[in-house]
Amino acid sequence: MALTRGDAMRLDNADPLADFRERFVIADEHKLYLDGNSLGRLPKATRDRLHRVIDQWGDELVSGWPEWIEAPARTGDALAEVLGASAGEVLVTDSTTVNLYKLVNALLDADPALRTIATDTDNFPTDRYVLEGIARARGLELQIFENADPLNGPQPDDVPEGALVVLSHVGYRSGALADMAALDARATVIWDLSHSAGAVPIDLNARGLRYAVGCTYKYLNAGPGAAGYLYVAQAEQERLRTPIQGWFGQDDQFAMERPYAPAAGIARFMAGTPPILVLAAVEEGVRVTAEAGIEALRAKSIAQSELLIALHDEWLAPLGFTLGSPRDPQRRGSHVSLNHPDAWPICRALIERADVIPDFRGPDSVRLGIAPLYTRFVDVWDAIDRLRDLVARGVHREVDQTRSRVT
Amino acid sequence: MALTRGDAMRLDNADPLADFRERFVIADEHKLYLDGNSLGRLPKATRDRLHRVIDQWGDELVSGWPEWIEAPARTGDALAEVLGASAGEVLVTDSTTVNLYKLVNALLDADPALRTIATDTDNFPTDRYVLEGIARARGLELQIFENADPLNGPQPDDVPEGALVVLSHVGYRSGALADMAALDARATVIWDLSHSAGAVPIDLNARGLRYAVGCTYKYLNAGPGAAGYLYVAQAEQERLRTPIQGWFGQDDQFAMERPYAPAAGIARFMAGTPPILVLAAVEEGVRVTAEAGIEALRAKSIAQSELLIALHDEWLAPLGFTLGSPRDPQRRGSHVSLNHPDAWPICRALIERADVIPDFRGPDSVRLGIAPLYTRFVDVWDAIDRLRDLVARGVHREVDQTRSRVT
Repeated sequence: MALTRGDAMRLDNADPLADFRERFVIADEHKLYLDGNSLGRLPKATRDRLHRVIDQWGDELVSGWPEWIEAPARTGDALAEVLGASAGEVLVTDSTTVNLYKLVNALLDADPALRTIATDTDNFPTDRYVLEGIARARGLELQIFENADPLNGPQPDDVPEGALVVLSHVGYRSGALADMAALDARATVIWDLSHSAGAVPIDLNARGLRYAVGCTYKYLNAGPGAAGYLYVAQAEQERLRTPIQGWFGQDDQFAMERPYAPAAGIARFMAGTPPILVLAAVEEGVRVTAEAGIEALRAKSIAQSELLIALHDEWLAPLGFTLGSPRDPQRRGSHVSLNHPDAWPICRALIERADVIPDFRGPDSVRLGIAPLYTRFVDVWDAIDRLRDLVARGVHREVDQTRSRVT
Repeated sequence: MALTRGDAMRLDNADPLADFRERFVIADEHKLYLDGNSLGRLPKATRDRLHRVIDQWGDELVSGWPEWIEAPARTGDALAEVLGASAGEVLVTDSTTVNLYKLVNALLDADPALRTIATDTDNFPTDRYVLEGIARARGLELQIFENADPLNGPQPDDVPEGALVVLSHVGYRSGALADMAALDARATVIWDLSHSAGAVPIDLNARGLRYAVGCTYKYLNAGPGAAGYLYVAQAEQERLRTPIQGWFGQDDQFAMERPYAPAAGIARFMAGTPPILVLAAVEEGVRVTAEAGIEALRAKSIAQSELLIALHDEWLAPLGFTLGSPRDPQRRGSHVSLNHPDAWPICRALIERADVIPDFRGPDSVRLGIAPLYTRFVDVWDAIDRLRDLVARGVHREVDQTRSRVT
């Protein structure tokens, strides 16, 4: 028998991270926000920091630059801690898409033996689009391989041996957690950490991983459209050059009369002038994540997704739902997909009639993200309770199903 | 004989744009800020708008996206007005560097007959770096040609005929204003508008220009590291494809199962998720510029740079300065370079001892930018008066000359 609401409240009382919820703006306590894996909440420290940076622009004007110019590296070093990388290995800049583009091209340039690039059909579309464009431009083969069981994510045997492969650490639909070390042994992998960073330990250095990209607006709570990042292991940096050469990646930026020479270290992957407001938001989002600690966040995320799945099994399975995510928490990231033929109207009804914010992912997933920094056990319990009630009463058959599917 | 301070005050009293100064944060009335061509001031409306967008993130969370997703196109349309382009021709996204990279590659892909790319030695370094990288990657010839007279900027005869050429509308050192139509008739030109947009009429459509990029943090007052933009004339859009294919440039962004197909129109040049805070700042900066009107801003800018040059001739030339910008206002943008062998210590002394903020540009320029939205005639008068006094007394020989040369 599933846990009661009282049980969920007791879990909250025992939660060592419970106080972190206070660090975030929560405008409406009745609204249950389970889409922090798409856009994380606003940390109060970020709001205050952004106000300060805006005032700094107004007051200091161009004199602010000697401090601002350090922001990409400083923010990257803070993020490196959360990703299990070393200082000087992570750079916060541009978007995930642009960073992936730079890194794929840099690797192909450095190693002409790489003639095949690949990804799996379950990877996030922008990664595939980037690879399609690069394959066309360079006349390379792009292999987009199916995963035998999407719920389990990519398996080493399915990865083309010796290829340059882009894989998501956590699948954006299923939430499947890839076996990074095993996959990395099979091919040169660029890891997309967008759906795991901030909620799942990544241990880039400990796992010997060499390349990664990701975004900061999900579990890292840096705000809508905040910058992406890239990671290149120290030993690989000097042999790589970005295809997009700009003045912030130049060796001596203000010696303007010379030909381009890449800066030392990870800074060589910078292109144009970095957005200072955005970097400040990333720094604050990363800071609160680091303070909570990635291991503690992971433990809480697992406990909450286990609760969610237990409630699904008892309440939702009889209503036609099936679990669209791995059942083993060690094989799962921090979101859970609940599949149902009416997933789209159910998502609309949850938002419009039940004050629960999920994410629809086609064709048939109600995706629920657990952002452990601010989600309570009782939020999970209430959300699944409201979902059960709504579907049992057929409320989803009453909503306007034509609204656009903008996430 | 030069104008008196009283004359300058009378010019301010007669200035139809004088009230726009009230729209900006001015923290220190004694500090004379003549570096708005490097980083523009903070509009009060931008501060308020950013506060609202931060709160909107906190309150609406992912429900904000249906509005935010319109921001790149909406902001681009507002900017189009300032640039003399049509709605649907300008996109605010990424950095200038990344936009230039996308546009050069798109043009080279569309027209394989373009085998030579070129720029002039007086162009801003990041433009040259981008071209160096593309030339290397594609095995093309890059011609970097000298301008016979840097004070006059690039001349049509110096441009390699039929090449793909990147030129600045206004030279970042000399302030020389290029003859866009004549140069464009000679080659396929991508115009870098960074040093003119917001202070000089550009008239992209009226001049029949096809391609441009630029930044928004100078005269457009969008803040440190704010987004860049690109312009592609309507008739050229459908034949061009960005090399960086991302989900925001995809035809039907949320139909995630299909191969990449470029979106219709200028949106095809988008890559990753756009930074919403930054776009809001760009929109506000563009709005105040449009409200003042680019023709009125140009008239004021010319009057102020004429005052500056008249004072230079009378007071500074005897102290060893020479004019590093065109004397004809029709050939000049909105900044004036005053050359002196001691330009670097003079710039340090202006900042540290005289509360005047110029910009040093190597090897020997004191660059003074006139941002006509908020600069007063009396500011110009006072700045040149303080500069005269400082050099006459040799104060620049007392300052620490070792400080780093960050812009």
